[in-house]
Amino acid sequence: MNQMRASEIREILKVAVSPEMISLAGGLPAPESFPLAAIATTMAELLASEGASALQYSTTEGDAELRAAIAERLGRRFAIATAPERILVTTGSQQGLDLIGKIFLDPGDVVLCESPTYLGAINAFRCYQPRFVEVATDDDGMELADLARCLAANPGAKLLYAVPDFQNPSGRCWSRERRAGVLALARRYRLAVVEDAPYAELRYSGEPQPPLAALDDDDTVLYLGSFSKVFCPGLRVGWVSGAEAVVEKLVLAKQAVDLHTPSLTQRLIARYLRVHDLDRAIEGIRALYRERRDAMLASLERELPEGVRFTRPAGGLFVWLELPVGCDARELLAACLAERVAFVPGGSFFPNGGHDNTARLNFSAMPPERLAEGVTRLARALRRLQAAAVPSVA
Amino acid sequence: MNQMRASEIREILKVAVSPEMISLAGGLPAPESFPLAAIATTMAELLASEGASALQYSTTEGDAELRAAIAERLGRRFAIATAPERILVTTGSQQGLDLIGKIFLDPGDVVLCESPTYLGAINAFRCYQPRFVEVATDDDGMELADLARCLAANPGAKLLYAVPDFQNPSGRCWSRERRAGVLALARRYRLAVVEDAPYAELRYSGEPQPPLAALDDDDTVLYLGSFSKVFCPGLRVGWVSGAEAVVEKLVLAKQAVDLHTPSLTQRLIARYLRVHDLDRAIEGIRALYRERRDAMLASLERELPEGVRFTRPAGGLFVWLELPVGCDARELLAACLAERVAFVPGGSFFPNGGHDNTARLNFSAMPPERLAEGVTRLARALRRLQAAAVPSVA
Repeated sequence: MNQMRASEIREILKVAVSPEMISLAGGLPAPESFPLAAIATTMAELLASEGASALQYSTTEGDAELRAAIAERLGRRFAIATAPERILVTTGSQQGLDLIGKIFLDPGDVVLCESPTYLGAINAFRCYQPRFVEVATDDDGMELADLARCLAANPGAKLLYAVPDFQNPSGRCWSRERRAGVLALARRYRLAVVEDAPYAELRYSGEPQPPLAALDDDDTVLYLGSFSKVFCPGLRVGWVSGAEAVVEKLVLAKQAVDLHTPSLTQRLIARYLRVHDLDRAIEGIRALYRERRDAMLASLERELPEGVRFTRPAGGLFVWLELPVGCDARELLAACLAERVAFVPGGSFFPNGGHDNTARLNFSAMPPERLAEGVTRLARALRRLQAAAVPSVA
Repeated sequence: MNQMRASEIREILKVAVSPEMISLAGGLPAPESFPLAAIATTMAELLASEGASALQYSTTEGDAELRAAIAERLGRRFAIATAPERILVTTGSQQGLDLIGKIFLDPGDVVLCESPTYLGAINAFRCYQPRFVEVATDDDGMELADLARCLAANPGAKLLYAVPDFQNPSGRCWSRERRAGVLALARRYRLAVVEDAPYAELRYSGEPQPPLAALDDDDTVLYLGSFSKVFCPGLRVGWVSGAEAVVEKLVLAKQAVDLHTPSLTQRLIARYLRVHDLDRAIEGIRALYRERRDAMLASLERELPEGVRFTRPAGGLFVWLELPVGCDARELLAACLAERVAFVPGGSFFPNGGHDNTARLNFSAMPPERLAEGVTRLARALRRLQAAAVPSVA
């Protein structure tokens, strides 16, 4: 626990709750995307027809119908060769990260990750006291030459953690070449690859790339998925798909940490998938977020002063900002809070620190006009900060 | 993970699912005790009036209304002085055990526990590689002289884990004197006490005893409660009540392991508690289980051969059997499966092994006639085993 630190995101979210505040800090799905009417009907049918079993203890592995539906869906949509017995249902995919840390990591073990990487994964793994090695990452994904260098320097590394599709925080999506290259290097070093894919279905432009798990034919990859971004996050239902022997170990670990994921939420999703068309619902989410992404990018193009770089994500929930070197995003955040706009300073997405000139902006949680107003406020705060900084430098 | 072992209970439950099998092995609440109609109404109202927020991400600490309701209830029913900010909502109280292990235990740390103790706690703590010291326990609870001896031998012990009310597996309830005595010794050695109280409201006879947490005035006790045995286990909602500084650490640990417990199940229980009378519903559960306990005890009195001892629990879900020394409960289980009755051999409830002549029987999950038939089958298997054993000894 000494290794654990409070999440900056969480603390900021607590501050940024007043109605006048425009929070670009969170990573919340748009609540208007939740299929509320269908959920209410499905839940009523579920409680009427199988309420007692949906409220009873169930197995650690997860609901059998849900595991089968997840396996079928991964095959159909992503060409991932999996099977119900290779699926463990988890309490959100965050729990998948914790369980993987629990069964793979001893203190001092090396975890390779993108730079930057997902803060929740840093927090989950950090409990097990690994050493994080950040691999240089550009708009096409992990840089293969740098990964080769990191592996040569750490040939006993245990895990490679990656979010290849529309990463949190950067919004980047890996090219096919990088996917194949990373997998080849991981195989050579007998490294387990954790592919965290909560945003894989949220593409707004460009061509889909195959998941690492679809390119994997020797059980190198543990694939983490979630219903949080394509259905509802408050149900906390995610999954791990991987080699049966690994899944069995994860099941034992999960049994000790929460016995099983709630039966009711699992049965609800299983029944929803049986009766309703999730693919079609996701099309609606994509249309909603595409418009928001476009609005944010247009505002950023228009408003930001020169010298600020930002990603143009083809999917996901986030845009990543690089301020001029020397500009501290925490100072910018302070100036932004005065303008009633919030974001997450990027430093906490780098497990080994640094990069204080970066920031993460969310575009999924509010309509275009409000995103535009948020960017206007942020740009105003930034110009004010830069104007104030000039005399002190001169 | 090398320290983790498969739960015998889980494997037995998998075997004992055929309809002809009478399983006394589980610990399932009676599904007919679930307030299904009230839950369906509450859920429909919840989704209609606040569906979007009940399906959205929420805070790690837990739903504010639920934390307040739990704190109020602990004060009113148990005279535990707590407050909403001293409550962390967990994904079942099993998660409370895991989080406590995570923040308290380093490898080699000593955990004191009853002998026998709850298997789920052994599994949760074992991940953190402690050394278990079993304190001798009789029908009144932990034996104070033995606890004093264990503490003198292990003055740096970190945790004392106890289930003072109708323990799983023994069904025992501690006397008030033992409660006060254990707390005094824990204080002297600055030991954190984990009071696991899932059965505290399930008393069928005799006078209630105060929780350790109600006798505690210096934040020695972490109190774990659960809605699993008094409402529905499939919702996986439990809680920890304790010192605010400890709860804050548990919140950080929980954030890394599953972000938060599902919003929907928390809001459902909060709303149920607001609209319905849980105390009254629990009276119904008590009446149901009292009849079942009485039926099982009457059958055991009538059917079991001499030399078998068993507890007469005043509450909870379990009766504990001690077979004659030398009689192995795993052999009895094999004989019982042939008679189509299952139970859990007691050895796995002792973290340091031994006690192969013990067994746990559940009486909550089926009606009196079926319990009686189960005991008849068990007694038949036992007599057969004993008859077969005599010649081989002679």
